[in-house]
Order: sequence, then C-alpha cells, then structure tokens
Amino acid sequence: MAARLSLKQDYERLLEDYDTWLFDCDGVLWQGSTLIDGVKEVLDFLRSKGKAVLFVTNNATKSRKSYKTKFDDLGIKADVDEVFGSAFASAVYISSVLKLPKDKKVYVIGMSGMEEELRDEGISFIGGTSPEDNTLEPFSLANWTPDPNVGAVLCGLDTSINYTKLSKAFAYLRRDPSVAFLVSNEDSTYPTADGLLPGAGSVSAPLRYALGKDPVAIGKPNSTMLTCIKAKHDFDPKRTIMVGDRLNTDILFGQSGGLSTLLVFTGITQETEITGPNASPIVPTYVTSSLGDLRVLITPQP
Amino acid sequence: MAARLSLKQDYERLLEDYDTWLFDCDGVLWQGSTLIDGVKEVLDFLRSKGKAVLFVTNNATKSRKSYKTKFDDLGIKADVDEVFGSAFASAVYISSVLKLPKDKKVYVIGMSGMEEELRDEGISFIGGTSPEDNTLEPFSLANWTPDPNVGAVLCGLDTSINYTKLSKAFAYLRRDPSVAFLVSNEDSTYPTADGLLPGAGSVSAPLRYALGKDPVAIGKPNSTMLTCIKAKHDFDPKRTIMVGDRLNTDILFGQSGGLSTLLVFTGITQETEITGPNASPIVPTYVTSSLGDLRVLITPQP
Repeated sequence: MAARLSLKQDYERLLEDYDTWLFDCDGVLWQGSTLIDGVKEVLDFLRSKGKAVLFVTNNATKSRKSYKTKFDDLGIKADVDEVFGSAFASAVYISSVLKLPKDKKVYVIGMSGMEEELRDEGISFIGGTSPEDNTLEPFSLANWTPDPNVGAVLCGLDTSINYTKLSKAFAYLRRDPSVAFLVSNEDSTYPTADGLLPGAGSVSAPLRYALGKDPVAIGKPNSTMLTCIKAKHDFDPKRTIMVGDRLNTDILFGQSGGLSTLLVFTGITQETEITGPNASPIVPTYVTSSLGDLRVLITPQP
Repeated sequence: MAARLSLKQDYERLLEDYDTWLFDCDGVLWQGSTLIDGVKEVLDFLRSKGKAVLFVTNNATKSRKSYKTKFDDLGIKADVDEVFGSAFASAVYISSVLKLPKDKKVYVIGMSGMEEELRDEGISFIGGTSPEDNTLEPFSLANWTPDPNVGAVLCGLDTSINYTKLSKAFAYLRRDPSVAFLVSNEDSTYPTADGLLPGAGSVSAPLRYALGKDPVAIGKPNSTMLTCIKAKHDFDPKRTIMVGDRLNTDILFGQSGGLSTLLVFTGITQETEITGPNASPIVPTYVTSSLGDLRVLITPQP
C-alpha cells in the first residue's frame, strides 16, 4: 500500500532520502496553462537544497526548446538540458540505439517539435508537417513513389493525422519488415485545458491494427526514456524519486527503473483509483494531494 | 481439413447440396476493377439452376445502390436487394436492433455510401462528409458545442479521417456511456487495385484505444450481418454456402452462422496459409482456386 504523506516529518524524510527528483509536467506542475499552487516555490526550494531537478514528459508535439518556453511563461526555472521529452528521446534512440545509417530517413507522423528534435540530432526525415502529406485529398498507391531510403517510421501525437500519412507509414512498414516501427509514446489520451483528446497511442493505433504488430515505444513507462536520461545525467536509482499523476505511465516508469515514486492527484488519477477492491495493481511508494504540499518544508524567513 | 475441389463431380455435388449461395465480392468476383475470369458465366449458370445468389461485402464506403453500379459496369447481373453491405447492415442494426429513438442522431465517421444507407433507413446523422468535420484545422473542445441528441457513433472506412472527427467521436462516447459505439466492420486492411491500404478496423482503432473499449462490430465475421440477411431472405443454413477469399472474415462468418464455406485463392488468402504446420485454425469446408472453376459445370450447348 502507498504511504500517504501528511505530516511535516513525512516530507522531511522525503527530502533526506532523495537527491534526484524527476517530475512529470502536465497534471503535476501545471494543468493546461495554469500553474499548480505552490509548485514554483517547491521547485526553487528543492534546488536550494542541492537537489537535481529533471522534467520528464511524454508530450512529443513540442521540442525541448519550445517546452522550455512554457516553463519560462509560467515562471518556473528550467534548463533545456533538464527537460526530457519523448520527441527528444525518440531522436536519441534513433541515432544512438537504432544507429540509423546517415543515408537513411525517418518517415514522420508528428508535429514540428518532433521534427526539431530529429533535425538537432542530425536525422533526415520526410512526412511530418510537409504540405504534401497534410491533405484530405484521396490517397492512391498508384500516384505515389515510395522513398527507398526510409529506414524507420516514427509516430507521435499529430493533430493533422490523415489517411495519406497513415497509408504511407503502413506501406513503408508493410513492404520492408526491416523498417523500424517506433512510437514516441503510447498515451491513450492527451490532456488539454478543456478536457481529454485522443493521445499519441491512439494516433498510432491504426498502424498497430493494420500491421498486426506492436511498435517500439520510447516514452514513459518504457525504459528507453530512462536510458536516455541516464546518458545525460548520472543518478543513483535508490536516491531518485519520480513524481507523476498517471499510474500507467509515470508511476510504472519509476518502478520499472527501480526508482521510488510519488503520486499526486492534480492530474489524471483520482484518489479512488488507488484504494478499495478495484484499486490499480500499480502501487506508488508515496501519495500526496499536490506537489504544492511540500511547501510545508519551507520555513518562513524571519 | 478442407476438401479440395477438382473433379467435375465435386462441383456437381456442390450444386446439388446448396440452394443459397452467398458471395464476398472483392477477391471473389473481381480484383479491384477487373472481373475474375468465368465469374459472370458461373453466376448466370447458378441463377439458371434456380439458386438464390446474394452478395455480402464489408465495404461500407458504398451504398447498395452505388455497389449495384459496380456490378452493372462489370456486366454482372445483380439486384439491389441481393446486395448486403456493412453500411446497409449498420443502418438496419441501428433502426431494428438498437432501436435508436427518432429524435436521436448518429455521429458518423464514414463516407457518402454510409450516409446514403442511414438516410434510406430514416436515421438522422451528423459528421460524415460535412465540410465542418472534414478539416485539418486544429480542434479544441472549447470551440465546440456537442449535439445533445447524439445517441450512437458509427465508424467505417473514411479516407478523410482526421483529428476533429476522432476527437468528436471520442468526446461523445466518453461523456455518456449510453452512447452506442458501432463499427461497420473490423477489416484491418482495405484492398485496392494497387495494393493494401488501412481498413475500417484501422480507422476505428484510435477510438478503441483511447476509450479502452471494444465496439459492436456489424460486418463479417459478426453474426449481425447474417441476422440482417435473414431478415430479408429466407434460407436454410444447411443448404447455404458462403464463398469468400478471407479466412478471418468470410469463412469465419459462414462457420459462425452454421453455413458451409468455400475458400477461393483469387484474393487475400494464399494456399500456403491453409496447409502445413502454421495453417490457420479457421478451416473452410471446401477450397478451389477460383469461382471460375465452376465453369466445368456448364455443358456447352450443341
């Protein structure tokens, strides 16, 4: 059973036990475009105590650079190197793990943030935001010349998803089984300020269904994301805590990587989902209402 | 093991044993826009022997009326009442089984053929080919007023699939669990003259994934399609045969309905898929290379 934090000493113990703090963003730091109460103060306090603070998001529509702008806008201190998005992790996976040869290209279902990360990693790509593929015109294989250099298909959240993109990605993957099938993350839904919309996992679902084959998934809860973080920041899993609002992504991600986990209720998960007979089998180490609860640690200066 | 038909007497036995002949269309009667050799003669011959001839297709992009045009163009005799498409069967399901009240509407992901069948059955609908929903512009829940009268979402193959349609369908199904989730059919792929494209099952896969819930599927191999045929044509299952090219739709459909089945190799299934150690567990009653093989029955007139 998860330990419910409530007393000041509970939070003090947390501060003592963990040197590296990984945070999911939406539903933990902010909700849509609204900062969650106390978050800024808590993050500043953790930094003042010498803690490493890293941000881990499955959002693949934004590059780290444009994600950083969001932190700036909300007044949260963050360095680009502290932000790990699934688009960035996908690009790192393609260059470092898949080692896609330089003459090969990626066919992208995704948005400009994904393209920016691929470009920064020196990876050639087609599809994505190209006008040719952003169309509702009928698609016919007869009027299309596949690019023989496509060596991978990468699919993330794409709000311009259409039949042409799906058909091309399907054709690349079907014609040549050596073409890698990658998805930035498998989130079923995408939280917006006005409610849930279909997520990256839903956008790639047609390919999975048409091919009868599962992709390599990069983002949380998969370990690929943690491998990517470890490559840039050294940390001791035993003294690292993952703070998140989703059991099947954030908490599972932390657990799979041997980290401690803290679930907050400012996002997707309701408190009822972790108690009672129908409770999720994914049990966080700790739970607290909000990251803002850690303000109790901040002793007012005289 | 399936009986391989080869001798004239094999085909004569078939003619004796079955009064009602159900045919899948693409891959059995034609390939894309090319009639399969001998099909016209065989169908005419079956009719001349007093056999009932019915056409059963999962294609939900065409209404029965526009499907009939395809038969006319290829010179195959067919009456609209002999054609059963999954769009028609979906409309019949909504009015006769679901009994959707007249003041309720269907939100459609699908093409004009589906709209035509709904209209013919007196069912109100929104979405589909409406210009408002056929857009690649960003979708926001804040700028959208859901129609409170939507009582069902019906999804078929839609080559104008986009994020607005998926988001609206998802929102209707998520907000109110009493809204019925229907798909015309679950075919993973859609055969065209130039190769396979993602099918209706792939187009509805994002909804299935985002909702974590399976729809009611209408087309083959589901029994709903057979119920729909039975409502219009009386037949004895023991003296009825289903002829098709797909094991997991046509042959399974026939078997589930207690019909005999004949697999042909002019479409999706290769002969290697029904023999050897990796053979499919779905075993047709009979196999033959092509429907045209039945020409052996036609005695030339002196």
